[in-house]
Amino acid sequence: MSALSSRHLLTIEDLSVSDIGMILDTATSFMEVNERAIKKLPTLRGRTVINLFLEPSTRTRTSFELAAKRLSADAVNMSGSASATVKGESLVDTAKTLDAMHADLVIIRHGMAGAPQILARNMRASIINGGDGKHQHPTQALLDLFTIRRQFGSFEGLRVGIVGDIAHSRVAGSLLPALHALGAKTTVIAPPTLLPARPDVLGAEVSNNLDDILPTLDVVYMLRIQQERLERSPLPSLREYARLFGLNLARLKLLKDDAIIMHPGPVNRGVELSSEATDAANNLLLYQVEAGVAVRMALMYLLLGGESDGAVA
Amino acid sequence: MSALSSRHLLTIEDLSVSDIGMILDTATSFMEVNERAIKKLPTLRGRTVINLFLEPSTRTRTSFELAAKRLSADAVNMSGSASATVKGESLVDTAKTLDAMHADLVIIRHGMAGAPQILARNMRASIINGGDGKHQHPTQALLDLFTIRRQFGSFEGLRVGIVGDIAHSRVAGSLLPALHALGAKTTVIAPPTLLPARPDVLGAEVSNNLDDILPTLDVVYMLRIQQERLERSPLPSLREYARLFGLNLARLKLLKDDAIIMHPGPVNRGVELSSEATDAANNLLLYQVEAGVAVRMALMYLLLGGESDGAVA
Amino acid sequence: MSALSSRHLLTIEDLSVSDIGMILDTATSFMEVNERAIKKLPTLRGRTVINLFLEPSTRTRTSFELAAKRLSADAVNMSGSASATVKGESLVDTAKTLDAMHADLVIIRHGMAGAPQILARNMRASIINGGDGKHQHPTQALLDLFTIRRQFGSFEGLRVGIVGDIAHSRVAGSLLPALHALGAKTTVIAPPTLLPARPDVLGAEVSNNLDDILPTLDVVYMLRIQQERLERSPLPSLREYARLFGLNLARLKLLKDDAIIMHPGPVNRGVELSSEATDAANNLLLYQVEAGVAVRMALMYLLLGGESDGAVA
Repeated sequence: MSALSSRHLLTIEDLSVSDIGMILDTATSFMEVNERAIKKLPTLRGRTVINLFLEPSTRTRTSFELAAKRLSADAVNMSGSASATVKGESLVDTAKTLDAMHADLVIIRHGMAGAPQILARNMRASIINGGDGKHQHPTQALLDLFTIRRQFGSFEGLRVGIVGDIAHSRVAGSLLPALHALGAKTTVIAPPTLLPARPDVLGAEVSNNLDDILPTLDVVYMLRIQQERLERSPLPSLREYARLFGLNLARLKLLKDDAIIMHPGPVNRGVELSSEATDAANNLLLYQVEAGVAVRMALMYLLLGGESDGAVA
Repeated sequence: MSALSSRHLLTIEDLSVSDIGMILDTATSFMEVNERAIKKLPTLRGRTVINLFLEPSTRTRTSFELAAKRLSADAVNMSGSASATVKGESLVDTAKTLDAMHADLVIIRHGMAGAPQILARNMRASIINGGDGKHQHPTQALLDLFTIRRQFGSFEGLRVGIVGDIAHSRVAGSLLPALHALGAKTTVIAPPTLLPARPDVLGAEVSNNLDDILPTLDVVYMLRIQQERLERSPLPSLREYARLFGLNLARLKLLKDDAIIMHPGPVNRGVELSSEATDAANNLLLYQVEAGVAVRMALMYLLLGGESDGAVA
Repeated sequence: MSALSSRHLLTIEDLSVSDIGMILDTATSFMEVNERAIKKLPTLRGRTVINLFLEPSTRTRTSFELAAKRLSADAVNMSGSASATVKGESLVDTAKTLDAMHADLVIIRHGMAGAPQILARNMRASIINGGDGKHQHPTQALLDLFTIRRQFGSFEGLRVGIVGDIAHSRVAGSLLPALHALGAKTTVIAPPTLLPARPDVLGAEVSNNLDDILPTLDVVYMLRIQQERLERSPLPSLREYARLFGLNLARLKLLKDDAIIMHPGPVNRGVELSSEATDAANNLLLYQVEAGVAVRMALMYLLLGGESDGAVA
């Protein structure tokens, strides 16, 4: 029995506002655990956690692997082309195979939107979406929310701007609905070529002018630019993108005094963030990484049946 | 001191009938352990288990890794091109190196028949053959035997048909001698191009006609077809193969009421098994996967010196 | 607080003579631990150790991974092209990311000299250089020193010859200064094309004639030849190299009775060592491997704050 509304985290919509609060509260305890010399709790001893990463990723895989190990789970990595998928096995059959091995929790990263749902329908384990195609990346949203809440205390009325490749971003795909559910006001800022065909369905205001919007924001969330994407696109060029939509020294001065900058990492220095903007004191991108391990520990703990208090020995 | 006749499992012939019985009995306890929430025993704490997988495999490596971790061993993966073999080190030198690191158990998968013997001759660790070329895959045979015994109680007089690429199958290479030792009657069913040059040495009856044999069988063991192999062969084509030797809805009806279907996985749906035959209630391929972890735990436990009772705390 | 002079091991020069003594003494206890059936101490329980291997290596990575696991640390591998560096993240940003995840110890292998320093400047963790370009490989030097000290008791006045590609060897880069600090007398023996531009700065005697030097040596340290390197070089050919600088049966007879042969592994049999010289009783290359795990355990223990006694429960 999970303490959350759902046994899985497939999309951010699986979580109620109260679930999100429970995860962030629990993560607060784990932040403290991670600062100890001995970062280890017996919570998930004897549980089997599989990191099924079928797209390359080291940061996110490492974050999940550390979360599992610090909770004493048995963590196994299955990655990339090394996976059974090279022999043409379908994802349904992979799910059933891992189920037969008595996996308790599978984190899946996959290039195809909806892959986590396929696992959830075909096995008894809890499933966490570790990023599926251009669709969602809900644990990224949770660590972002943790970071924002730590800074501002709540979300109600907060103004958040998300800048970059909105059309293809699974980070935005999870963060926008979460912010809306929590009462924040959002604006997406992007060149028209990097907006979805119908930006109105995002539930956010839309702008093409970063300079106009910056002074109004509490949170400036800069998405990572996939350079390959821009190169295939007619406009803008990488340099043009940086000039129009990059956060640089000049634009830092447009920010409100207590505004924060966020980024999912890794940064393309000189593209979406100049070096000054990357290293600025109000850029919380490293706090986001730190929160990532704690939030994932909290999620694993709650999905596998823990109560919202009593997580930390 | 191993409780088994041999310190290694290099070929299925290393095991006496009594050894096989001991492994299957011990695995029964571990099946129960693997159904617990806390799937963890202290049995191999402080033992070093190396997964040396020099051919790609995720299922089998994961099965062995889970087995080792659930017994609390320190498990280390050395795989594929990442291995020292890229620097041209010979397998003899790899064996001596792992020995110097005080490995207790090495599971080796290798493209070359006989590779496990090279390790066994050059190190003190126990060696398990995790699949060597087209030669043997003895832990697959053990999990198959576990599955058959669970269904029928014993092997004496049981009729088992093995269908597919007999000539190149290490699964058949281990399963056939085991079944003969245990008193089962075997038939191999394959097109002439996928039979060995001298099929008589297999000790099995030989047939080219699946429909004739199916009604007589208690176990229909469908081998995985390596599509590359067929494509290089003059006959049959993949479609022809499926038509003549694939298990499909029509052929399911030829089976005895209590017959079971088995497959080592992963399945090529539509080739050796149609989707109906893959998902049929009497297809035990997922039970085989489940048994695989338990059988490997039993084998690790017994090879590293445990007694046949007392494995499970 | 480390028991050593430095929190890091970036170059062998980070260690005082007294530090080296403390590491080798502590490693002696761990040699004994590694011979036990249960090779496990709780020393680093709850500590996070990252193996960041951005050049292919299995032996060294496995040695570090076993060292970490036998001390009960949580060990995570980040390797090769799987790493975030494929997304173009700079090493500085990788360092800050791992820091945010509360890594306690990072072992880095990298093709670029100085990479470990970049980590050390950008994170709170202790850093161990696992080999950086053609620069240094200090844990190799420590295990070599352990092996020499075990054989001869001390270093003062010992004559050590290092044979091979001195110009490009990170093994020589760490071993030579260590031997000098400890009072040994060194000679480097190589063809002119494999010597650095200014061999005088090595602090060693220089020779092109192995046969002349062999009878004077206590230790003959044969470097691994990178065959690619020779092939790009005008002289000598691989065969010529083996004839002039390889240790073979004839040259074994030139050695003093109590001289030892060493090699960092893996051996190119037939190039720097003939098969007879590889397998000679006085070739300690496997003892070096064994010492490697113990020395790395000692180093991890001392860097993360242990005292020089009391390591072994």
